[in-house]
Amino acid sequence: MKANLLAGINNPKDLRKLPKEQLPKIAKELRDFIIDIVATKEGHLGASLGVVELTIALHYVFDTPNDLLIWDVGHQAYGHKILTERRQDFHTNRQLGGISGFPKRIESVYDAFGTGHSSTSISAALGMAIASKLKGNFNKQHIAVIGDASIASGMAFEGLNHAGVTNANLLIILNDNAMGIDPSVGALKNYFTNVKAGKKVRKNNIVEALNFNYSGPIDGHNIEAIISELGRLKSIKGPKFLHIITTKGKGLDKAEQDQVKYHAPGKFDKNTGELIAKSNEVLPPKYQDVFGETIVELAKKNKKIVGITPAMPTGSSLKLMIDTFPERAFDVGIAEQHAVTLAAGMATQDLIPFCTIYSTFLQRAYDQIIHDVALQNLPVVFCIDRAGLVGEDGATHHGAFDIAYLRCIPNLVIFAPLNEVELRNIMYTAQLGINFPLTIRYPRGRGTIIDWKQPFSEIEIGKGICITEGKEIAVLSIGTIGNSIIELQNELPKNKVAHYNMRFVKPLDVALLHTIFAKFKTIITIEDGTIVGGFGSAILEFAAENNYKNSSIKTLGIPDNFIEHGKTEALFDNIRLSKEQLKHFLLEL
Amino acid sequence: MKANLLAGINNPKDLRKLPKEQLPKIAKELRDFIIDIVATKEGHLGASLGVVELTIALHYVFDTPNDLLIWDVGHQAYGHKILTERRQDFHTNRQLGGISGFPKRIESVYDAFGTGHSSTSISAALGMAIASKLKGNFNKQHIAVIGDASIASGMAFEGLNHAGVTNANLLIILNDNAMGIDPSVGALKNYFTNVKAGKKVRKNNIVEALNFNYSGPIDGHNIEAIISELGRLKSIKGPKFLHIITTKGKGLDKAEQDQVKYHAPGKFDKNTGELIAKSNEVLPPKYQDVFGETIVELAKKNKKIVGITPAMPTGSSLKLMIDTFPERAFDVGIAEQHAVTLAAGMATQDLIPFCTIYSTFLQRAYDQIIHDVALQNLPVVFCIDRAGLVGEDGATHHGAFDIAYLRCIPNLVIFAPLNEVELRNIMYTAQLGINFPLTIRYPRGRGTIIDWKQPFSEIEIGKGICITEGKEIAVLSIGTIGNSIIELQNELPKNKVAHYNMRFVKPLDVALLHTIFAKFKTIITIEDGTIVGGFGSAILEFAAENNYKNSSIKTLGIPDNFIEHGKTEALFDNIRLSKEQLKHFLLEL
Repeated sequence: MKANLLAGINNPKDLRKLPKEQLPKIAKELRDFIIDIVATKEGHLGASLGVVELTIALHYVFDTPNDLLIWDVGHQAYGHKILTERRQDFHTNRQLGGISGFPKRIESVYDAFGTGHSSTSISAALGMAIASKLKGNFNKQHIAVIGDASIASGMAFEGLNHAGVTNANLLIILNDNAMGIDPSVGALKNYFTNVKAGKKVRKNNIVEALNFNYSGPIDGHNIEAIISELGRLKSIKGPKFLHIITTKGKGLDKAEQDQVKYHAPGKFDKNTGELIAKSNEVLPPKYQDVFGETIVELAKKNKKIVGITPAMPTGSSLKLMIDTFPERAFDVGIAEQHAVTLAAGMATQDLIPFCTIYSTFLQRAYDQIIHDVALQNLPVVFCIDRAGLVGEDGATHHGAFDIAYLRCIPNLVIFAPLNEVELRNIMYTAQLGINFPLTIRYPRGRGTIIDWKQPFSEIEIGKGICITEGKEIAVLSIGTIGNSIIELQNELPKNKVAHYNMRFVKPLDVALLHTIFAKFKTIITIEDGTIVGGFGSAILEFAAENNYKNSSIKTLGIPDNFIEHGKTEALFDNIRLSKEQLKHFLLEL
Repeated sequence: MKANLLAGINNPKDLRKLPKEQLPKIAKELRDFIIDIVATKEGHLGASLGVVELTIALHYVFDTPNDLLIWDVGHQAYGHKILTERRQDFHTNRQLGGISGFPKRIESVYDAFGTGHSSTSISAALGMAIASKLKGNFNKQHIAVIGDASIASGMAFEGLNHAGVTNANLLIILNDNAMGIDPSVGALKNYFTNVKAGKKVRKNNIVEALNFNYSGPIDGHNIEAIISELGRLKSIKGPKFLHIITTKGKGLDKAEQDQVKYHAPGKFDKNTGELIAKSNEVLPPKYQDVFGETIVELAKKNKKIVGITPAMPTGSSLKLMIDTFPERAFDVGIAEQHAVTLAAGMATQDLIPFCTIYSTFLQRAYDQIIHDVALQNLPVVFCIDRAGLVGEDGATHHGAFDIAYLRCIPNLVIFAPLNEVELRNIMYTAQLGINFPLTIRYPRGRGTIIDWKQPFSEIEIGKGICITEGKEIAVLSIGTIGNSIIELQNELPKNKVAHYNMRFVKPLDVALLHTIFAKFKTIITIEDGTIVGGFGSAILEFAAENNYKNSSIKTLGIPDNFIEHGKTEALFDNIRLSKEQLKHFLLEL
């Protein structure tokens, strides 16, 4: 039985006591440790495997946590977590009450900055480095590890552009594996590829032109080389840039071979890497696949349709369209701002752009929605994926805010389908020709209808529908959470609880609402978005405007705090939006 | 008397009939025309003067409006407007009912894209170019003119990064005058400066590395050179980049010499350029100067305070701190995303960053506020300038949405001062040490108190105050619009209308609200933000949560449509928020 060195490493101080020669063994053990646990507990795999050597080298050379280390994006930080006092908690990764899948300041002093969204590290590390300088602390190190997909995002460029004119003590390490979740794209990626290929003519230009001390590219799996280079850079003042080449999924053959699938592979055999087959049960489709298959189906008939995704072709299933119509579907990289305004430009020329963005990442394009799309009233179709709670990715990834932040924007139509059929039909409706921007929000995960590919029919804009008649209480739901009400109707007293699937947050179905307010003294709104400013508030605004004072209105939704990570069902239960909780709530009334 | 050629030019077709030799004369006349009108009607001056030759050359060489031309940012488009059927309307520029000071699609077919916010042009033009390609229109030209300050923003980089891997027929013209509103900053600007200085070693790297066909730099005031180069580029396929050097304010000595002041100089003598002196009347200060002077005053005593502005040092008056504490105040260029996360990074290291951003531009940093600041609960102080209506800049610049889009974010405290003293005191309070992010919103323009530099006092977080007692109606105001209520109290019946300056949108003063709801049957909320999702909705949410059904609540604010340009007073009157309108409203109740 071989000695396990990793078991003796609780924090970087322990690590630094080891002779350099033992670090490759630590790397092997750390990699095995990650594989062992992720194989059964699930989570992000490939990114962390790729930076095992870098992680060890960074904590070996630098004086963490006094030196500040930021991982961008944070799903590559598993090795970092394991080496920084969280080895024994790592089996709780991403579980409710367990450690987060991303660096998190309140979780550990070693997590200098939370990084669930990409491309923030240069700005944050620069802020820290400037702070150190102002405090007269000239030896403190500030390190941002950033992937090649993340560095192509505009925000990262803004950070570089500023850092280059400071003399801040900043080290940017480009972790170049030519991958985001999907393969990296764009001119900058091609440039880095040329650099790697040894086309020295272009080697240092971009980074040095921005006034950084550039070094590299070096092999990111050669632990000795990294340690030597980090040691050298430690003594150089000002902004520095180290380019390292890594392989995503390094050390697990299958993960190296299929880097997209093994980004977050679910359960797998830790020895062979084989994915554990899911059950053969026929399940309703994922909303993502409904989107992906439907856009292809529509695009076959309507040549005006184009598709855009910022770096999520696989996750959003736009990949189905990219594969079918490569000229008409675009992965623009981590560039939400660009994605939205690109769509706006296309819409001016009579195309029908379907721009699919995760709710949480659409926050990056908020100004573009207002200024470039809504103000000009351009018919862009936003497919807002992963709206509501997303589960194990946690607070940084929940799509909690979109209803509230979109609702105040004039001209915008906001629709949330109850199910797969409504998602299909609103997409069908959108491409018939609309003269306004349309947002369609739907959640991560599976729908409710196995036989979902039904003939298209048009949805009337601004019309809700009554699903169940009732006499005492009116439940107004928006989106897929309405299915919980449908499912629990059998468990409620007969003819008491009416259920309206309102479908449109904006414009509201005013005619229907007048009927409802005339009839019901108790009105409940339900949404999987923030209570503050959300769909419920729209109903309150309607009631106030029309001076409906006889009805009590109770608004249910995501409360005014950030929601942690864990299984979606458990999270819904915590915030009293699970089917059981809703049932109790309605029975109590 | 010299013949006026410009009078015969109604659109670019007329222009194209002229022999090339006459174009310099047109340039002279166009420049004079702009100066003549802006001298008395006010508006943006320097930027449009700098591109007179480029404007003429573009319309001369390209087949506008079939070829698509985007001006980024749009305040350089006066010459464009005059040459494209709006010469005779140009005296209505920026006035209510007149033409917009920015390109506007519904105003003219020549305005291919609205560009009140910067750095959108590459994305929009690329979208158009891709659309043309898909439609088989391979000869159509798509041109983005972008300033050197605008191109340094992250979104522009995202556009370049995508465009470089397409073969879209896109021409980007860098209008390099080394200026935004204030002097340009950053490593990219230094790079371009090196290019201009003939340091050829670095000449083409960045742009060519991103796979553009680069040409230049050429003299942007040599109309023949520009025409010749544009003619050559017209026949080159794929993404092209032309770098031209211009002088902001070209042709008016004073405007060339003081480019910041003459960006939008107000009224001036059209012959000498001398600014028309304002009256000597002693007026209350601008909120901007209250901010600027107060942060300097506080920073003198509190070494933890730092200031950040994205490209608006003069407009925000952070320049006062940059001049006093150059090491502690940062103009980061047009980089709102970076500005916010830089502040977050600084806050982790125990600095107290005051990040001042115009409300409309803070939309660019929405994700960073949520993900980098609020989620980590970092004590960044946001000074949200130009909240509410801004007047002549119009729909692209009004700060209408901030209350609604901020209110749904957990942890955030949202304060709006009634006047200069409250602005000073909340800034004082912030730097005493807070453990949450604080947003402070205040409008463009002057306050109400001449003797505003009063001793500091702490503001209790979450506490509103009663300004006037009353028995029948409660007016709850937030921010400076409350002054209208104070001013019109004398014209209302005595003891009827109570007035509460709520000060905090979040957290609400719940204790005070319980008192108000217990006492009043009619409650009016007033804010200069959107009614949808705004402060009024917060009050509705409070009432619903506490089941207050006896009170009628009427929410006044900005209605659910985009507000045009014009004098702020007139705009307020249009949306029934002027003092007179509020008086009528209250008297009618």
